[in-house]
Amino acid sequence: MNKILTFGEIILRLSPPGHRTMKQSHALEFFFGGTELNVAASLATMGCGVKHVSCVSDDFVGESALAFVKSFGIDASFITRNEHPLGLYFLEVGASVRASRIAYNRLNGSFANIQSGKTDWKKALEDCSYFHWTGISPGISEAAYESLKEGLKTARAMGIEITADPAYRSNLWKYGKSGKEVLQELVGYSTIFIGGVNEINEILGTNFSPDKEGFLKACNELKRQIPSIRKIFDKIRIGVTASSQQTQGRALANGNYFETGFLEVNPVVDRIGTGDAFAAGLIYGLQHFDDEKALHFANAACAVKHTILGDINYSSVEDILEVMNGDSGGRIKR
Amino acid sequence: MNKILTFGEIILRLSPPGHRTMKQSHALEFFFGGTELNVAASLATMGCGVKHVSCVSDDFVGESALAFVKSFGIDASFITRNEHPLGLYFLEVGASVRASRIAYNRLNGSFANIQSGKTDWKKALEDCSYFHWTGISPGISEAAYESLKEGLKTARAMGIEITADPAYRSNLWKYGKSGKEVLQELVGYSTIFIGGVNEINEILGTNFSPDKEGFLKACNELKRQIPSIRKIFDKIRIGVTASSQQTQGRALANGNYFETGFLEVNPVVDRIGTGDAFAAGLIYGLQHFDDEKALHFANAACAVKHTILGDINYSSVEDILEVMNGDSGGRIKR
Amino acid sequence: MNKILTFGEIILRLSPPGHRTMKQSHALEFFFGGTELNVAASLATMGCGVKHVSCVSDDFVGESALAFVKSFGIDASFITRNEHPLGLYFLEVGASVRASRIAYNRLNGSFANIQSGKTDWKKALEDCSYFHWTGISPGISEAAYESLKEGLKTARAMGIEITADPAYRSNLWKYGKSGKEVLQELVGYSTIFIGGVNEINEILGTNFSPDKEGFLKACNELKRQIPSIRKIFDKIRIGVTASSQQTQGRALANGNYFETGFLEVNPVVDRIGTGDAFAAGLIYGLQHFDDEKALHFANAACAVKHTILGDINYSSVEDILEVMNGDSGGRIKR
Amino acid sequence: MNKILTFGEIILRLSPPGHRTMKQSHALEFFFGGTELNVAASLATMGCGVKHVSCVSDDFVGESALAFVKSFGIDASFITRNEHPLGLYFLEVGASVRASRIAYNRLNGSFANIQSGKTDWKKALEDCSYFHWTGISPGISEAAYESLKEGLKTARAMGIEITADPAYRSNLWKYGKSGKEVLQELVGYSTIFIGGVNEINEILGTNFSPDKEGFLKACNELKRQIPSIRKIFDKIRIGVTASSQQTQGRALANGNYFETGFLEVNPVVDRIGTGDAFAAGLIYGLQHFDDEKALHFANAACAVKHTILGDINYSSVEDILEVMNGDSGGRIKR
Amino acid sequence: MNKILTFGEIILRLSPPGHRTMKQSHALEFFFGGTELNVAASLATMGCGVKHVSCVSDDFVGESALAFVKSFGIDASFITRNEHPLGLYFLEVGASVRASRIAYNRLNGSFANIQSGKTDWKKALEDCSYFHWTGISPGISEAAYESLKEGLKTARAMGIEITADPAYRSNLWKYGKSGKEVLQELVGYSTIFIGGVNEINEILGTNFSPDKEGFLKACNELKRQIPSIRKIFDKIRIGVTASSQQTQGRALANGNYFETGFLEVNPVVDRIGTGDAFAAGLIYGLQHFDDEKALHFANAACAVKHTILGDINYSSVEDILEVMNGDSGGRIKR
Amino acid sequence: MNKILTFGEIILRLSPPGHRTMKQSHALEFFFGGTELNVAASLATMGCGVKHVSCVSDDFVGESALAFVKSFGIDASFITRNEHPLGLYFLEVGASVRASRIAYNRLNGSFANIQSGKTDWKKALEDCSYFHWTGISPGISEAAYESLKEGLKTARAMGIEITADPAYRSNLWKYGKSGKEVLQELVGYSTIFIGGVNEINEILGTNFSPDKEGFLKACNELKRQIPSIRKIFDKIRIGVTASSQQTQGRALANGNYFETGFLEVNPVVDRIGTGDAFAAGLIYGLQHFDDEKALHFANAACAVKHTILGDINYSSVEDILEVMNGDSGGRIKR
Repeated sequence: MNKILTFGEIILRLSPPGHRTMKQSHALEFFFGGTELNVAASLATMGCGVKHVSCVSDDFVGESALAFVKSFGIDASFITRNEHPLGLYFLEVGASVRASRIAYNRLNGSFANIQSGKTDWKKALEDCSYFHWTGISPGISEAAYESLKEGLKTARAMGIEITADPAYRSNLWKYGKSGKEVLQELVGYSTIFIGGVNEINEILGTNFSPDKEGFLKACNELKRQIPSIRKIFDKIRIGVTASSQQTQGRALANGNYFETGFLEVNPVVDRIGTGDAFAAGLIYGLQHFDDEKALHFANAACAVKHTILGDINYSSVEDILEVMNGDSGGRIKR
Repeated sequence: MNKILTFGEIILRLSPPGHRTMKQSHALEFFFGGTELNVAASLATMGCGVKHVSCVSDDFVGESALAFVKSFGIDASFITRNEHPLGLYFLEVGASVRASRIAYNRLNGSFANIQSGKTDWKKALEDCSYFHWTGISPGISEAAYESLKEGLKTARAMGIEITADPAYRSNLWKYGKSGKEVLQELVGYSTIFIGGVNEINEILGTNFSPDKEGFLKACNELKRQIPSIRKIFDKIRIGVTASSQQTQGRALANGNYFETGFLEVNPVVDRIGTGDAFAAGLIYGLQHFDDEKALHFANAACAVKHTILGDINYSSVEDILEVMNGDSGGRIKR
Repeated sequence: MNKILTFGEIILRLSPPGHRTMKQSHALEFFFGGTELNVAASLATMGCGVKHVSCVSDDFVGESALAFVKSFGIDASFITRNEHPLGLYFLEVGASVRASRIAYNRLNGSFANIQSGKTDWKKALEDCSYFHWTGISPGISEAAYESLKEGLKTARAMGIEITADPAYRSNLWKYGKSGKEVLQELVGYSTIFIGGVNEINEILGTNFSPDKEGFLKACNELKRQIPSIRKIFDKIRIGVTASSQQTQGRALANGNYFETGFLEVNPVVDRIGTGDAFAAGLIYGLQHFDDEKALHFANAACAVKHTILGDINYSSVEDILEVMNGDSGGRIKR
Repeated sequence: MNKILTFGEIILRLSPPGHRTMKQSHALEFFFGGTELNVAASLATMGCGVKHVSCVSDDFVGESALAFVKSFGIDASFITRNEHPLGLYFLEVGASVRASRIAYNRLNGSFANIQSGKTDWKKALEDCSYFHWTGISPGISEAAYESLKEGLKTARAMGIEITADPAYRSNLWKYGKSGKEVLQELVGYSTIFIGGVNEINEILGTNFSPDKEGFLKACNELKRQIPSIRKIFDKIRIGVTASSQQTQGRALANGNYFETGFLEVNPVVDRIGTGDAFAAGLIYGLQHFDDEKALHFANAACAVKHTILGDINYSSVEDILEVMNGDSGGRIKR
Repeated sequence: MNKILTFGEIILRLSPPGHRTMKQSHALEFFFGGTELNVAASLATMGCGVKHVSCVSDDFVGESALAFVKSFGIDASFITRNEHPLGLYFLEVGASVRASRIAYNRLNGSFANIQSGKTDWKKALEDCSYFHWTGISPGISEAAYESLKEGLKTARAMGIEITADPAYRSNLWKYGKSGKEVLQELVGYSTIFIGGVNEINEILGTNFSPDKEGFLKACNELKRQIPSIRKIFDKIRIGVTASSQQTQGRALANGNYFETGFLEVNPVVDRIGTGDAFAAGLIYGLQHFDDEKALHFANAACAVKHTILGDINYSSVEDILEVMNGDSGGRIKR
Repeated sequence: MNKILTFGEIILRLSPPGHRTMKQSHALEFFFGGTELNVAASLATMGCGVKHVSCVSDDFVGESALAFVKSFGIDASFITRNEHPLGLYFLEVGASVRASRIAYNRLNGSFANIQSGKTDWKKALEDCSYFHWTGISPGISEAAYESLKEGLKTARAMGIEITADPAYRSNLWKYGKSGKEVLQELVGYSTIFIGGVNEINEILGTNFSPDKEGFLKACNELKRQIPSIRKIFDKIRIGVTASSQQTQGRALANGNYFETGFLEVNPVVDRIGTGDAFAAGLIYGLQHFDDEKALHFANAACAVKHTILGDINYSSVEDILEVMNGDSGGRIKR
C-alpha cells in the first residue's frame, strides 16, 4: 500500500571516459538513467517498493535497459516495448572552468512513441501511495504527455500523493504544445511541488525574485492559483565551477518555512541526477520523517549524489544520514 | 579529374568490447562508418582523391564524425549539418555458432533529414571520374532518395562512371516508397553494377539461380532491361561460422566472364564493411588495372577487411596485393 | 505453479582480461556465477519463473551479487546474508595448447556458512515444479549439505521433479564427509539424472566403459540401485584444444535411448558454465518439448554457451533453436 | 648489517576503477599490499636492503604476489606458501562527502594459516638492524601472532631495533585473544613506538587527551609501563573530506619533543598505505638523519603517498625531500 | 591570404592512465602533440586556415601522426617523411604535492633529421599572414635549426608577421650550438614576442626582476636590442600544486601596457600545452580583436586548456569567450 | 655454479590492444622484452638461476624495466644505466591473412650506447655454466658488439657453454660492420648453435637446401668451419596464417640426428618471443635432460609460448611437459 510509482523515459547516456572529448575517444561509457527512473532507483536502493512505467525498444538495447531496472528490484511489469530505438544522449564531462555538453537523441525514440491507453493505471497504482512525475516527460512528445495525464488523472481520483518536479527544458517541447500551459495543467493534478522561484515563474508567467521573500511570495501565488499543492520543496545549487558545487534546500510546507545550510561538494564526480536524488530523498523523507527532516535528508541525498558516477544515487539511507549529520567523508568504512 | 565522389550516411557504430553482450558491458567501443563512407575511406587510404557528400548533426557527435572523415584526407566540404542526431547502430559481435546482432537508430537522423537542393553537384563532381552509391541511402528516407537522385542525374549528364551497389535491406524502406522500384530507377543512371543474382532478382523481380549459369542469365537480363550497365561484379561470401568466412568474386564485364578462387579468413576479426572493401577495391582496380585483375584485387580487399576492426579497410594497395598474391599472413613485417 | 527452484553458491569469478596471466595484469574482469545460479539465470533468460536459494555476504560484494541475480528477474527473496565473505575464484583463461587455470577461495565463504533451518522450504517451493541441484553444493561444507538435504526432502514430499547434476570435484569435500556417499544419498531424492558414465561410476563405485553400451549398462544399474531416477541425460564434450570444443548429448529416458550429433565450436569464447547451459536447456526442454527434442535443445544450449563470455548463457530460446536447427552463425541479425 | 626485516600479510586489493561502485563495474583494478609489505616496498624503493617474512598461497595468485615483492628487489626467500587462498579485500573509493568502504576476506587465508616454527629467524635477521611489525598481524589469527612473537623474541635477543605500529582494528581479533593484551605484550619487545594518544589509550586502557599535553603524558606513561620503548613518533591526519587531507607529525624521542607543520594534500589520489609511508619514512630517517629530521621526512613521505595509487609509496628519497622542503608540486620534471 | 604556418616536431606522448606510475601500468595512453602543432591544431579548431611544416617517420607511427594532423583540417602537404623514428616522450602525471615527470626520446628522431633545402617555403607561405615558431625546434638538432632559419628568412622577406615563443629548455641544445645565441638570432627575424622576463633574461643575458617594472624594462631592452619586435605578450602561471593553477597575461604592445586578472583552474586535468593554447589564442586574437582583447582571449584559452586532456586545446572560440567573460563552468550545455 | 648468463637489450614493446591499428587506438599496451631477456625470464620462471647483462635508461622508463627484470628473480646487478632512452618498438598485431607490422626505435637507445669495459665479466660469470647470446645484439651498434665480444671471450676462457642464436636481421647492421662477418666471428666463440639452414647459409655464404639432407650437410659444413660448435638445434615454424602456426624441432648433436613431430597452435595469441622460448626450453633441457628430450622440450616450449601474450614465456616446466606429452589443452586446471 506504500509503494511509489514513477513514470518517464529510460534513457541511455553515452560518455567519453575521464574528461576526454568525443574526438579523443574510441569508447563511450554508458549508463541507463532518466530523471524519473533515477528517482525510482534511488528509492528502491533505500528499500522502498517502486514501480516504473515506461516504454523501451524491443531490441537488445531495450533488454539491457530492462535488466538494469530489474537489478534494483523495481517492478518493471508495466514497462511496454515498441519498435522505436531507445532514447539516448551523449555527454562530454567538463571540469573546472569548462562546462559539460550534452547532445540528445530522444525525440523519436521508444518513449516518445509510448502508446497511451495501454497502461492499466488502476492496477499499476493499486498498492501505491506516491506518484512522481517531472516536466521532462510531457515535453518529449504528445504521446508521452497523454500517457502521463492518464496516469495523473487516475492517481488523483485514487487520492494518491502526487509529487511534481516540473523542470522546464527549452530543448524539448518541439511537438507543438506550450510547455507553460501543459505544465500548469499537470501541476493541477499534483499535491507536492518540487521546485522554486524559477519553476514557478516559468509556469505562472510571474517574475518573483529568487531571495527568501520572493520564494515565499511565489509559493503563495502558486498555492493560490493551484490549490491542490500543499507543500513546496526547493533545492538551490550554486555551481562554483564544474568541479565544485554547493547545495541547499528550502521549503514551504503547510504554512511553515524551513531551510537547510549549504553542503559543499568538491570535487564533483557527476552532476547528472543530483536533482533526482533530491526528489527521491524528499519522497523517502516524507514517508519516514517530518517535513523539515525530509528537507534536510533530501539536501544530503542531493549532495552525496554529486560523488557518484552515473545518473543514479546508489546511497543507502544510512549513507545519506551520515552526510546529513555532518560526517562528510574522509574516513574509510572497514 | 580522377577523383571519386561517394554519397551516403555517416553512421556511428556502438559495440560492447570483445564478445560481450550489451548486458555484460559498461562501455561501448565506437567507430564511424557507413557503407559509402567505408568505400571513400578505403579509396583515400589507397591514395585516391575522394569527396564524400553527406549530412551530419550540428553537435559534438557530428564534429567528431567530420574529424574522422578529414583524418583520411577525404574532402569534407560538401558535408552539410543539421539539428537532427547522427544516425547510429548498436552491434553485438557474435562468435562461432552465435550470430551478430544489430539494432539501428537511423531513420530520423541527420542524414535521413538531408535537404535536397542544397548540394552544388556540378561543382562537387567537376574533378571526379567516379560516383559511388548504394541501396542503403535511398532506403533511409525520401529526402536521402531525392538528394541521391539529384547527384546521379548530374553525374550521368557529365558522363561520369557510376558504380551501383544496390543492396536491398528489408529493415529500411519505411517511408512509403518501394525498394524494388526505386532501386530499379536509380540503377538506370548507373554504368557498373556491384552485386549478383540476389540483387538482380530483387530489383527485376526475377528468379535466377545462384550458380554460374544463373549468374550469366541474370546479368544478361539486367543489361537487357537496364542498358546503361556495362559491367557486373559480384562478391560471394560463404559464412562457415561467425568466425570463419570465405570470399570469392565473379564478373561479367564487356561480355567476358571472370571468377576468382576462394580466399579463406579464419578467424574473422570484423565482418562489417567487407562488401564495401570489395567495392573500394573494385573501383581502385578499375582505375588502375584491367577488369579481371580488378576483380581479384577487390576480392583480396574484401578478404583482408575481415581482419580489421571497425567498418573501414585500413589496408594499403601493397597490403592487398600481398593477399591477392597468396602471401596470406603468418609473417611479421619488421 | 511451473517455477523452477535452484539452490547453490553465488560465486565471484575474477579473471585477467584477454589471455593475460595474472602476473601480466593490473585488473581483473569479474562475473557472478555459480553452477546452479547459471542454470537459474539461463532459465530466467528463456522466460521461465525462477527462484534461487543461497546465502551471500552482508557487505557491498554481496549487494552486487544480489543486484546481479535480480537483473534476470530471478526471485531473490529466499537468499539470506551473513558476515562471511562471498566465495570467489580466480581464472586464467588458456588458449589453444594452454589449459585454463582456476584458484578457489570458497571453503570459508558466506555460502559455506549457510545456516540450515532458516529457509521456509515449503513456501519457497509452493509454486515450483522443478528443483535443480548439483554435486558442487554438498561438497563445499556440511552446512551446505544439510541445507540442500532439507530442500530435497521437502521437494520430494511435495512430488516436485528433482534434477540432479552430481558432478564430483576432488578439490571439494574437505569437511569430512565422503563425496561418493553423500552424492548417492542425495541422488536418492532425485528423479532426473544429468550425467553420464563418469558420474555413475563415481557414485556407484562401478567401472562402466564410456561407449554406448557402457552408458546403457551404467544407466540401468543406476536405475536399479536408485529407482527414483526415471531419466538420464548426458552431455559429452570433446576438448580438441582450449579453443576448440565439440558437444554431444545422449539420454535414456523412460526406456528410450536418444543421441544428438556433434556440434563444433571454434573458437571457444568461454568454457565455464557450458554444462550448466546444458542443464538449463534440458529443464526448459522437458517443460516445453518431448524428451528427445529436449536433449537436442540442451546440446544446442551447451554449444552456444561456449561463445558467450562469463558463466551465464544469455541466449534466448530462439537463439538456441537456431543453433539446434543448424543455422550456425556467420550471419548478422539486423 | 643494515637491512630491515618486515613481517606481515601480503594482501590483494580489488577496487572498481575511478569512483565507481562495485555494482557499476565489470572489472576490478588490483594491487598487492599489506601494511608491513607497504613499509618494506617503500624502504626498498628508497634504496634500503629489505627482507619480508610472510606466507602466500601456492596457486598463481600467490605466484603473482611473489613476483610483485621481488620486483622491488625485496628478499623474498623467507616467504613460505600453503594451500590456503591469499587474503584480499574489496575497496570502493569514496570522494568528497562520500566515505570509502572496505570488505575483507583475510581471516582464513594463507597468512592466517602461517605455520610458526618454520622460519629460521636467526638467519633471517642476521644482517638486519631493524624489525618492523604492526598490530594488524597478531589480530588476524593465533598462528600469525605466534609467528610474530617468535620473530620479536629472536630480534630482541639479537639487540635489533624494533619498530611497533600497534594499530588496533576492531574488525580483527576474532580468534579469541584480546587485542589490548596481545599488543601490550608485543610492544614489550619493541624499542620504537609509532603511534599516538589513541594507540596508547587502546593498549594501556588509559584516557589521555589528544592535545600536546595529553600526548606527552601518554608517552611518559607508556615509557613507564613499557620501558623498552625509547622513542614515540605519532602521525596526525585531519580528513577534511575523502578528497582532502592534512598530515602532521609529532614525537617524543629520548626526552625531546618535536612536531612538524601541517602538509595539505588536495586532491587525495589514494589514502590507503599513508600510515605505512610514514613508518617507512621514519625508519629511513632514523637510519640516515637525526630524530627531528626523521619526523619531518616521515611526515612528507606520508603526504606524498596520498598522491600515489595503490598501497605502496613509490617515491624516491629525493621526491620526499622535495615535499619536505616545501616544493609542493605544480612543476613538470623534464 | 590569412593562413597561419607553424613549424615544429610532431611528438608522440605516452602516459600511464590516471595517476599511475609506469611501474603500475600495462598500457600507455597516447596523444600526438608538439608545441607548434598544438598551436596549429588549436587555431584550426577555432576555424583558421593552418599549414604545418614538419617531418615524420615513414612507418605506421608516422602515418598515424599524419592522420591526426589531417583530422583538424590542417594542410599537411608540406610534411615530409624519413626513415628515423617519430620523436616521443613518456609522461607520469603528478597530483597535488607530487610533480609530473617526463622522459624524452626525440634527439635522434625524424624531426631531428629533417632535411633543410627540401621545403618550398615560398609556396608554403604564399597565402599566409602569420608564421609561428618556438625555441624548442632549434634546440633539437642543427638540421631543425637550419630548416627553421630558412623558413624565417623567407617569411621575413615576404613581410609576414612572425610570432616567436622562444622558450629555452636546458634538456635540449645537445648538438653544439648555444641556445642563447641561436634564440637571439632567430628572434631577430620575428615581430611578436611571446614570453616574459625569464625568456628575455635568458636571451639577452640580462637580470630583470619579474615584477611589472622589471617586465617593462625587459621589454624595452628587448625592443632596443631587437627592433623587429613590436609587441610582447607574456603569460604568468602560478602553480599552487600540480592540481591547481592560476594564469594571468600581460603585454606591452605598441607602447601600451595591458594585463588581465588571474583565472583559477582547479582541478587541473592536463598542464601540457597550456602555453601553446595561450599562443594560439593570441594569434587568433591578433587576427580578430584589438591587442588588449587578444591578451584576454589568450589568457582564457590558456586557462581552459588546463581542463582538456592531451596536448591540444579542443576549445571553440565560443568556449573561450565564455571563460573570458567569467562564465566559468558549473553548468551543463544541453 | 649452474647459473645462466644472458646478454642483450631490454626493449619496450608498444602495441594497440586487440587487433587494432595504431590509427584506431588511443592507448598502447606495453611489455618489456628483448630476445635474450625473453630467454632469461623463461629460464627464471622454470626455476633456474639467471643473470642478465644489459644497459637501460636512467629515467623512470629504465626503472620500470629494472623492476620487471627483478620480478622474475633475475639478478640485475650487472645492468648499467645511461642517459639514452630505452629502445622500443611498435607492433600492430595482424590476424589471419593480415601480417603483423613492427616499427623500431632502438638504434640510438641506452643499449646501443652500452659502454664496453664497464662489466666485470669474470665476476658476472663466476657461478655460471651457460652464456646465451643472439645475433640481434651485435647488429644494434658497435658498442653492443664490443661488449658482447668481451663477454664471450671471458666465458670461453672460463670453459662455459655458449649458446648462439645468430639470427640475422636485415633492418639492423647500420653501423658499418658486416653482419655475416661479425656473426661468423662470434659463433667462433660458441659451443651450441641454435639455428638451421637459413642461419648457416647466412653466416657461411653457402646455399644448402632446407630439407633434411640439406640440414645435415649445412650442419657438417658449419662444424667443419667452426669446430667449437658441438651441437646444432633448429626450430622450424610453418606459418599457415598470422593466426595459425606449426612448430617442429630438429637437431644434430654429437653426431646424432633427432627430430620432433609438428605441434599445431591455433589460434596464435602472440608470435613474438617464440624462438626465444625455444632457446630457453633448450637450455633448460640441456641442463636437465638428454639432447633428444631437450629438443622435444624446446619445441613444446616454443608451441606453448604462442598462446601467451607478450614477449615472455610464463610457462612452468610442468606446463611445458604437458604440452610435450600431448596433453594439448581443452581442460581447466582447478
